[in-house]
Amino acid sequence: MTEKNLDSELHEWTDTVREALSSSQEETHPADAAEHIEGLRIEDQVKFIKQLPIKDAAESIAEMDSRDQLALFQNLNQGLAARILERMSPDDATDIVETLDPELQKAILSRIKPEDRAEISTLLTYNPDTAGGVMNTEVVVLDQDLSVDQAIAKIRDEVEDKEIPYYAYLVDGRGRLAGVVSLRDLLVSRHGIHLRELIKTQNLIFVRHDEDKEEVAKLIGHYNLLALPVVDEDQRLLGVVTVDDVIDIIHEEASEDMQAMVGAAGDESADSPWTYSVKKRLPWLVINVLNSAVAAWVVHLFEGTIAQMAILAVLMPIVANQAGNSGQQALAVMIRQLATERFERKKSWLAVFRELKIGLVNGLIISILVMASVYFLTHKITLSVVMSAALGFDMLIGVLAGASIPLVLKEIGRDPAQASSIFLTTITDSVGFFSLLGLAGVFLLGR
Amino acid sequence: MTEKNLDSELHEWTDTVREALSSSQEETHPADAAEHIEGLRIEDQVKFIKQLPIKDAAESIAEMDSRDQLALFQNLNQGLAARILERMSPDDATDIVETLDPELQKAILSRIKPEDRAEISTLLTYNPDTAGGVMNTEVVVLDQDLSVDQAIAKIRDEVEDKEIPYYAYLVDGRGRLAGVVSLRDLLVSRHGIHLRELIKTQNLIFVRHDEDKEEVAKLIGHYNLLALPVVDEDQRLLGVVTVDDVIDIIHEEASEDMQAMVGAAGDESADSPWTYSVKKRLPWLVINVLNSAVAAWVVHLFEGTIAQMAILAVLMPIVANQAGNSGQQALAVMIRQLATERFERKKSWLAVFRELKIGLVNGLIISILVMASVYFLTHKITLSVVMSAALGFDMLIGVLAGASIPLVLKEIGRDPAQASSIFLTTITDSVGFFSLLGLAGVFLLGR
Repeated sequence: MTEKNLDSELHEWTDTVREALSSSQEETHPADAAEHIEGLRIEDQVKFIKQLPIKDAAESIAEMDSRDQLALFQNLNQGLAARILERMSPDDATDIVETLDPELQKAILSRIKPEDRAEISTLLTYNPDTAGGVMNTEVVVLDQDLSVDQAIAKIRDEVEDKEIPYYAYLVDGRGRLAGVVSLRDLLVSRHGIHLRELIKTQNLIFVRHDEDKEEVAKLIGHYNLLALPVVDEDQRLLGVVTVDDVIDIIHEEASEDMQAMVGAAGDESADSPWTYSVKKRLPWLVINVLNSAVAAWVVHLFEGTIAQMAILAVLMPIVANQAGNSGQQALAVMIRQLATERFERKKSWLAVFRELKIGLVNGLIISILVMASVYFLTHKITLSVVMSAALGFDMLIGVLAGASIPLVLKEIGRDPAQASSIFLTTITDSVGFFSLLGLAGVFLLGR
Repeated sequence: MTEKNLDSELHEWTDTVREALSSSQEETHPADAAEHIEGLRIEDQVKFIKQLPIKDAAESIAEMDSRDQLALFQNLNQGLAARILERMSPDDATDIVETLDPELQKAILSRIKPEDRAEISTLLTYNPDTAGGVMNTEVVVLDQDLSVDQAIAKIRDEVEDKEIPYYAYLVDGRGRLAGVVSLRDLLVSRHGIHLRELIKTQNLIFVRHDEDKEEVAKLIGHYNLLALPVVDEDQRLLGVVTVDDVIDIIHEEASEDMQAMVGAAGDESADSPWTYSVKKRLPWLVINVLNSAVAAWVVHLFEGTIAQMAILAVLMPIVANQAGNSGQQALAVMIRQLATERFERKKSWLAVFRELKIGLVNGLIISILVMASVYFLTHKITLSVVMSAALGFDMLIGVLAGASIPLVLKEIGRDPAQASSIFLTTITDSVGFFSLLGLAGVFLLGR
């Protein structure tokens, strides 16, 4: 080894040591720690958590996927699990406790300090899909009669415990929500002024605990809020939903819509166990077989026609695909519309009319294109016309069905996306095959 | 009219008046004002805006849809348009100016005050899909050597102009980002302490101006931030992306993925002009016809087989639908995976392997089910076996294609969702028809 090489090796080595030292001093963000933990085998996860300070363990675990949280808590000793849950914000702790099986849940809860246990038990009573189920109970509550300076002093005392106190809420004597002040308002107000004077009642936006969480996400997005207060039947303040939770809700809902549409589970991801996906998708695949059987039965009605004119079987996939695709375009736009805006019945049905116009024009253009192509290839004018008529008609049915299915599902109280693509295909296939084979029977074979 | 009726009518009337009075005193939230404006005819929109104070007009217009903003600005007089843009936050103003045609853009810009014009012109140079294109330049910048009290005083002076100063950023002598303090940190720190001591460098998360806005949204979500600083090549602070913009980005990206998948435009909604949708969807429908022609050509190869056994045409839709549906399940999960997590090549290809296992098991179960049904209905054992083999094989191809298409599109630098469903159908149709008709030819007709 030359001296120069040795020298450069030494340099490299010092760099490595320096890096290791600096990284050990640097504090890891809980979200990154969570990713690190998720990458470990379960025994190593437990070891890693044991050597962390309880506070850091709580913060990191709160950022983990719920499936990984569950696996970890099934393997931690119950005393440590209880200590960690006590240090989490109650809503995060509740999300974890909720997934444990009843026996383990009871065992761990019994080891949690009474105050924290009471809080978690209360939160467990809310439906996880509602505002109550996603709210955070660590809220700064102030009396309207405080001065700005008193309010700041109170916040300084409390802030250690509270997650994101960018707003403080004012309540009246009976605990009912009376107004909101932002930290920013407090910071820039004249000293001595009373909170009462800062209240802007007109902008007091809140939801009841049983409001759908998707609606909560829409409100926070609509009004650009950082947090939205949640109240009970008597408008008493229960907690707040914060914007970071809303980001998770929006992602979840988008995945749910896209995956439910084709019969995959809303909460599947590339991280879910593959057996979970098998179990969730299989029932919809069975329903899809049954639905396809309807389309097959339509074709069966015309087996004689096909035996005489096998070219019809060649054209069948084109009709089915085109109508299916136009329908899916309408379906996608409608599902996203329902996901991003508050539902207005009239506006939604106007959107169906809009799709009808789109389907008419696109159907006409594609039909003419296909008519010309079929004629060019077969030189059979009647066949070309029959094909293009069936295609155009089915594309129209496609957009109508695509736009209506989510609305009908919504009207009957179901998830507007659920299996919508499967139902759509059944309709477009059956109508398409019936039109093509029926028209062919009448005009080509004179049946 | 009886006295009682009169009395109740009077009551109703007083209620109406009281309501009208209280609603006229109540300040409308800009987001609601925006909805109100969007519901008016364009002439009434202009009238309504003219009678509003400039500040209210600016706030309300900033909340409108970009299409409605464009229409409004094409109809406002240029002087008023310029005054309104000056009062908006520069990023919102830039978003509007960006959509105007070059001539109108120039005319309105020339009427805007030089400082504001310079700011908007600079923002116009960033790609709207990057951090620079969505950032807000109204940032509170503090010198590291200020004390907490000096910092609060400075914020009090500046806060009127700044949109959401929940964080203040610290820069060094050359304007390079050195740290961040939250308003909360300032509020709860001891007086006299210097900002330098509050900096937590290890948690300093920032992006370069040319980072994709989807990546920005992922970072803000991952670290639960309220704002993310944007810097230039030399780490000089340019602006921040705030969490409310991120909510819009996440919604946009979800719509884009779902709609692009089936060949609708990413920015379509039930509010877009229907002619816009016709224009955007038609090219993909044409591509879909061409793709379907591939499947049709496969069937054409076996026209003779079908003429002899028309039952094969009955079974074709079942194979195509099942494989298409399994593929779409894999596709949906993969697209959402790419939308919510940062891309890791290895993990993504492992996800394809995961889908393979799901496809194998579901394919096997559905094949057996279909084999039994076909046998029960036809009493033809070879036909049943041929059908179930083709079906199972095609379902496997479906999940493989569904999971791989987004990854392949991503690897070649395209949008992972774009027309993915259309390509998938081409593959599952062609493979399915080829397997079914090919196997039938060999084993049933001995070709």
